[in-house]
Amino acid sequence: MTIKVFGHTASTYSLVVLHVLKELGLSYELIQLNSFEEIKSPEYLATKHPFGRIPSLSDDGFQIYECRAIARYLINKYQGTKTSTVLIPSDVQKAALVEQFISVETSYYTQHVGKLIYQLIFKKIHGSEPDLKVANEAREELVKTLDVYEKLLEGKDYLTGEFSLADLLHIPYTFFAINVAGEGDL
Amino acid sequence: MTIKVFGHTASTYSLVVLHVLKELGLSYELIQLNSFEEIKSPEYLATKHPFGRIPSLSDDGFQIYECRAIARYLINKYQGTKTSTVLIPSDVQKAALVEQFISVETSYYTQHVGKLIYQLIFKKIHGSEPDLKVANEAREELVKTLDVYEKLLEGKDYLTGEFSLADLLHIPYTFFAINVAGEGDL
Ligand SMILES: N[C@@H](CCC(=O)N[C@@H](CS)C(=O)NCC(=O)O)C(=O)O
Ligand SMILES: N[C@@H](CCC(=O)N[C@@H](CS)C(=O)NCC(=O)O)C(=O)O
Repeated sequence: MTIKVFGHTASTYSLVVLHVLKELGLSYELIQLNSFEEIKSPEYLATKHPFGRIPSLSDDGFQIYECRAIARYLINKYQGTKTSTVLIPSDVQKAALVEQFISVETSYYTQHVGKLIYQLIFKKIHGSEPDLKVANEAREELVKTLDVYEKLLEGKDYLTGEFSLADLLHIPYTFFAINVAGEGDL
Repeated sequence: MTIKVFGHTASTYSLVVLHVLKELGLSYELIQLNSFEEIKSPEYLATKHPFGRIPSLSDDGFQIYECRAIARYLINKYQGTKTSTVLIPSDVQKAALVEQFISVETSYYTQHVGKLIYQLIFKKIHGSEPDLKVANEAREELVKTLDVYEKLLEGKDYLTGEFSLADLLHIPYTFFAINVAGEGDL
């Protein structure tokens, strides 16, 4: 079994996959892709990710892209084969709630925090000015979402009550927002 | 068994759930929610959807929201119990590819077509002018996505080769784009 991750340790979506691999106790090889040219090359588009993004993963020749799909695949295939964390429970209702909160994460959290980070960090890295209007709108939406999270998490440490893939998916962007963008007060 | 859908027949995300119920051969009761006030009421927020959206579903008292999570729940629980369409195959690799294309749909299709429809249709319905800059940007992104789809679908009728939840998720917005917004030439 050889798992290869095509990605980058500073890419939030790649980090999701690396965290999942770690929680499942799996070993892997990371192929760091450092440039835009690499992930937009005809070869990368044809064999790793047709939309030219990272991460992409190959497991003994089976190729899959999109971080949440990669995460579910690894969990479906390997969860329980080692002393690993349960990231999606087998109970149908419990699994449904994990999926519900993954959709919450995608729709109401990552969408906005992603925009904020893009404006505050990545635009700077690429030498252009952040659009503060866009950043402020994203921050406002994020504040609304966090107010709802406050209620959802009342009396709980994790979204479904137990740690799951839904919580894990929040980690990389939250880490960036607090430690790199200085938005910890949110 | 009583399945209740809280939604609206003109809501794309509600239609996803109705299509899934139909493919699975399940009967249900639709509770039409007609006003913004209804879905933003404290009671609705507390019991149906904390972010004030439709659809939400209750299955014998088990409450779940977010259309893709509802779809996966219904499939997990009921697929195979009747003469129903297979929307997510049991094979781990085949299921992974369905998930990959659901993420493609969410990230590169619905995001853009949703913005376009919002500008061209919903803003009009609510009596305000569409922002043509936003609409054009969304249309441009959509064209790029459709070019990749062209390649992904070469020699195939469906994204994974067989009809699945990934294809189904494209239906309501595509229907609106072609038949209501007149964007069929895309
Ligand atoms: N929907 C993708 C998003 C992946 C993504 O956008 N990755 C970023 C790096 S964190 C990327 O490849 N950016 C390059 C680009 O947008 O062209 C997923 O869930 O994996
Ligand atoms: N992420 C949600 C989106 C649901 C959604 O946005 N539904 C629309 C109707 S198609 C809605 O409730 N809009 C009301 C609002 O945005 O306030 C899902 O997947 O179910």
